[in-house]
Amino acid sequence: MDGTKAKRHGEAENVGLSSDGKKVVIIDQTELPARKIQLELETSGEMYDAIRDLKVRGAPAIGICAACCMYCLARQIETEDMDTFMRELTAYGDYLNSSRPTAVNLSWAIQRMLKTARAHKQKGRSKVLAVLGRECRNIQEEDIAMCRAISEYGLTLIREGDGILTHCNAGPLATSCYGTALGPLMLGAERGMKFKVYADETRPLLQGARLTSYELLQAGIDVTLICDNMAATVMKKGWVQACFVGCDRVAANGDTANKIGTNGVAVLANYYGIPFYVLGPTSTIDTDCHTGDEIEIELRDDEEIKKKYYKRPMAPEGVKCYNPAFDVTDHSLITGIVTEKGILRPPYEETIRKLFKQEEIRR
Amino acid sequence: MDGTKAKRHGEAENVGLSSDGKKVVIIDQTELPARKIQLELETSGEMYDAIRDLKVRGAPAIGICAACCMYCLARQIETEDMDTFMRELTAYGDYLNSSRPTAVNLSWAIQRMLKTARAHKQKGRSKVLAVLGRECRNIQEEDIAMCRAISEYGLTLIREGDGILTHCNAGPLATSCYGTALGPLMLGAERGMKFKVYADETRPLLQGARLTSYELLQAGIDVTLICDNMAATVMKKGWVQACFVGCDRVAANGDTANKIGTNGVAVLANYYGIPFYVLGPTSTIDTDCHTGDEIEIELRDDEEIKKKYYKRPMAPEGVKCYNPAFDVTDHSLITGIVTEKGILRPPYEETIRKLFKQEEIRR
Repeated sequence: MDGTKAKRHGEAENVGLSSDGKKVVIIDQTELPARKIQLELETSGEMYDAIRDLKVRGAPAIGICAACCMYCLARQIETEDMDTFMRELTAYGDYLNSSRPTAVNLSWAIQRMLKTARAHKQKGRSKVLAVLGRECRNIQEEDIAMCRAISEYGLTLIREGDGILTHCNAGPLATSCYGTALGPLMLGAERGMKFKVYADETRPLLQGARLTSYELLQAGIDVTLICDNMAATVMKKGWVQACFVGCDRVAANGDTANKIGTNGVAVLANYYGIPFYVLGPTSTIDTDCHTGDEIEIELRDDEEIKKKYYKRPMAPEGVKCYNPAFDVTDHSLITGIVTEKGILRPPYEETIRKLFKQEEIRR
Repeated sequence: MDGTKAKRHGEAENVGLSSDGKKVVIIDQTELPARKIQLELETSGEMYDAIRDLKVRGAPAIGICAACCMYCLARQIETEDMDTFMRELTAYGDYLNSSRPTAVNLSWAIQRMLKTARAHKQKGRSKVLAVLGRECRNIQEEDIAMCRAISEYGLTLIREGDGILTHCNAGPLATSCYGTALGPLMLGAERGMKFKVYADETRPLLQGARLTSYELLQAGIDVTLICDNMAATVMKKGWVQACFVGCDRVAANGDTANKIGTNGVAVLANYYGIPFYVLGPTSTIDTDCHTGDEIEIELRDDEEIKKKYYKRPMAPEGVKCYNPAFDVTDHSLITGIVTEKGILRPPYEETIRKLFKQEEIRR
């Protein structure tokens, strides 16, 4: 544990560009809470590994990271021939995009950077680099504004003294500001409100234990860490008034992919009559994806369940594991989806369509 | 991993008396699956610690262990004055009984040994010791017969090829034979039937990962280890046709205390329309306990969540934890309670009362 005080919200330090703009700087989230280590990513291989190995994680943070990566990699493409430049940048994008399949923000940010480059490619390499650098900052600034807006909307859903259950980590580390699921709590705490938060530890990678409880503790919020299988008990006891979770991809009908275990929390909340809210930016809504069935779920290594973090293997050597990184929560279990544009309510197919139609007109 | 073949079912080796009858011999379940270590318990302190620290665990196994402990401790009481003898034995019983509060089998076995001693105390110390030794063997043999009967009844609930989800460990290690929740699978496998078992790892002490998957693998049963928060996903995918769990205490209305997380599994099974069965001996039914609200739930050390098993702490130092060892599943979520006397069905208040009335008449 380091003794660092909580950063001021709005100062992103978990992911960004180095001062010379040549490297992507991240906090290695796999080392928290024991150690706070900054990593500099320079090669595409280092970037790919950092995303795949969850050194940087959280859908919005992955998006920001990917944008920064694309900028740094663009700088490494030395040619002035802009067709070659675009071809190489697209190849970098494809490579980075293959590091994790489920979160839409990864491909969203890569596509946005490619689109930006394409739009300016006639102006030559150095102009394109300047525009890409600005686009990185734009994405980060938009994320900060988005977190604030989500936090404000989310805060209207809870009252002083409420118990809030959260799963995995959708706090400042997962974004560039307050966070999404943790945002309303961070914002409320800044305004002197008190909550009681139950953080699911979130096996197998323990983002709840390592990151959420760390962030909440640093922000002075009353947090109790529980194992995932204790969520039903705290709900049954009447200690939970709302569930707040993040999201990695939301389908057009409201089905939501998020960290494995989220769906189970939603079923429990439904049984115990507790509202279940998904919090995330509209960039996480993938209208090309009709239902949750179309969302590809990443399967990860058995060793994360059997060995990782342990002093010695905690399961017999030959045993099979099933280790999906995400699950899909059916839209029928979701009370509301809190975005930076407001709170979407069922029927999501309609409210999402309406929102995106408005957005299109505005552009 | 040791290479030992699965023991023949019915040969209890996980808990029993040493050949000279002076010590209780157990397999240290906290060391599995990495190492198979036998421990000899001689003093009441060693016995208390072994139960409290889960070196011996599983409600029926704790009962057998407690009976063996009472026998060994009785031998250590040197007086021929039988009132003093009974006073000292009762004190030992109270001490052992305080090691874990939730499982009824602990107090059930201790009370049974005390009652037996009391019934024969007029005949003098050596006669009482002989009777207590026989009572130990009786309890163990009854447990073996009970496991067989539960396994036969349980096997009628599933079909070849079914997927079965289980939580924690209620296999041979938790009993003295096939086990309770795992019994039907063990028996079915002996008869050449094939099942697909999903074993919840069962945080924080990982009995599912360490013990259940070990026992099933050794018995040649197709087992897949999952984290607790993945249970909803395997159910949603249609991979689970029934849930089988053990029990630590069943109230008169069917409310069931079992390992933390069981209640959550029951809620999920209910939502996905999957039958949820509790398997355990009638000795686990506590008719003095009207509902689950009266069952005392053991709270355990935070360190089990934050540090135990890990190479380094996985949560920030100051964070609070809530670590209940058990939860209570509402009787309304239980499809059937499989006992050695048959399968109880709702309304449990009635079927349990009827069963115990019959038993009383038979005695």
